[in-house]
Amino acid sequence: MSATATRDQIENMVRSILLKSMGSPPAPAPTNGRGNGKAGGPPKVIVNISARHCHLTQEDVDVLFGKGHQLTPMKRLYQDTDFAAEETVAVVGPRQRMIPGVRILGPCRKFSQVELAFTDAISLGIDVPVRLSGDIEDTPGCLLIGPKGSLVMPKGVIRAERHVHMGPRDAEYYGVKHLDRMNMRVESPCPSTLEGLLVRTHPDWKLEVHIDTDEANACDLAHASNVILSKA
Amino acid sequence: MSATATRDQIENMVRSILLKSMGSPPAPAPTNGRGNGKAGGPPKVIVNISARHCHLTQEDVDVLFGKGHQLTPMKRLYQDTDFAAEETVAVVGPRQRMIPGVRILGPCRKFSQVELAFTDAISLGIDVPVRLSGDIEDTPGCLLIGPKGSLVMPKGVIRAERHVHMGPRDAEYYGVKHLDRMNMRVESPCPSTLEGLLVRTHPDWKLEVHIDTDEANACDLAHASNVILSKA
Repeated sequence: MSATATRDQIENMVRSILLKSMGSPPAPAPTNGRGNGKAGGPPKVIVNISARHCHLTQEDVDVLFGKGHQLTPMKRLYQDTDFAAEETVAVVGPRQRMIPGVRILGPCRKFSQVELAFTDAISLGIDVPVRLSGDIEDTPGCLLIGPKGSLVMPKGVIRAERHVHMGPRDAEYYGVKHLDRMNMRVESPCPSTLEGLLVRTHPDWKLEVHIDTDEANACDLAHASNVILSKA
Repeated sequence: MSATATRDQIENMVRSILLKSMGSPPAPAPTNGRGNGKAGGPPKVIVNISARHCHLTQEDVDVLFGKGHQLTPMKRLYQDTDFAAEETVAVVGPRQRMIPGVRILGPCRKFSQVELAFTDAISLGIDVPVRLSGDIEDTPGCLLIGPKGSLVMPKGVIRAERHVHMGPRDAEYYGVKHLDRMNMRVESPCPSTLEGLLVRTHPDWKLEVHIDTDEANACDLAHASNVILSKA
């Protein structure tokens, strides 16, 4: 099982699954609440699947890829300040197992962090907590292997908590604010409601739900006919 | 990534997650509707996770393990007519990738069938449909490899549709009948409602929900504090 190809295939299958939110938001839409959709229409809900990936400090990039190495952007992400890099690492857990080809997302950050689905974490033997990105105190670590070196990451392995990015217009449309919770109902052959998505707002962000591969597979997002986002 | 150990670890973690159903059924509970719980109490909801596995005909066992080979029971399943066998096979898909150590469930059936989570199927490159066990017309096949031989299974690879087994008392308690649908809300760090579980009734069956590893991981079933089953 090559982790890289699996990830790439998943990405091809589900990246930019674009579905209009058909559900009425529980809070009345303000008259100027246009979100990012057409004027007067509901916002378009983009659901992107975060396959396993990592964020690295420049110092860790130096160790893994050689002193002074700069990450090479391969593809811009939907929030276009970030990119998927050409570079990948192998992640090793305490069961002496490895997942190769784990994509690095750039640009470099002030902390290194590995985001895995539970399926990945269980296979590696890492008991990962569900955390918001960046909240890595008291989380387990792992071994990272790159082409020029390897390093022990003492902490930073998490399962990312399901969340939704949005700007102020979309927040107004849905009647939510930063750190509120939302539910997402997925209408598909495996209909499911993922509850408690954490709302994260920023003036520059486009409306985008992030879930992991286990969540996307559980609700068969690839065959979804509709996604309904609502305040929890 | 050893598929066997992953499966075993998942099994150890989540087998027999036993949670009392706290939710009121939408239909009034009949006065004699005791389910399998204590007299007058709600039924105990057992949620078991079906990790990837296969069912085989005796003819296919002959090819894979040698003429006349009999499956060796390793562990009785909750529905105790079935067992996990000592024997495993490797499953190969069109991407020339293999998942080793896929457990065989016995006893032998009249058809061979491989049940995978989407995470597994994507890694193998098999575009599996969501089907009820046994409904294998027009499903993809795979290559199975055993210690004494291999065979091309022309069809029978599915993702099992989420479902709930129950006997007549539990069906009466929940106000459902064979092939009705139910919803299951999982209260956990990743709260989720899996909708549309197919009801399957049989006089001898104990109440038991079957979901796959993607579904269990998505809703963090291992850390669930409660499970509420209700008529859809």
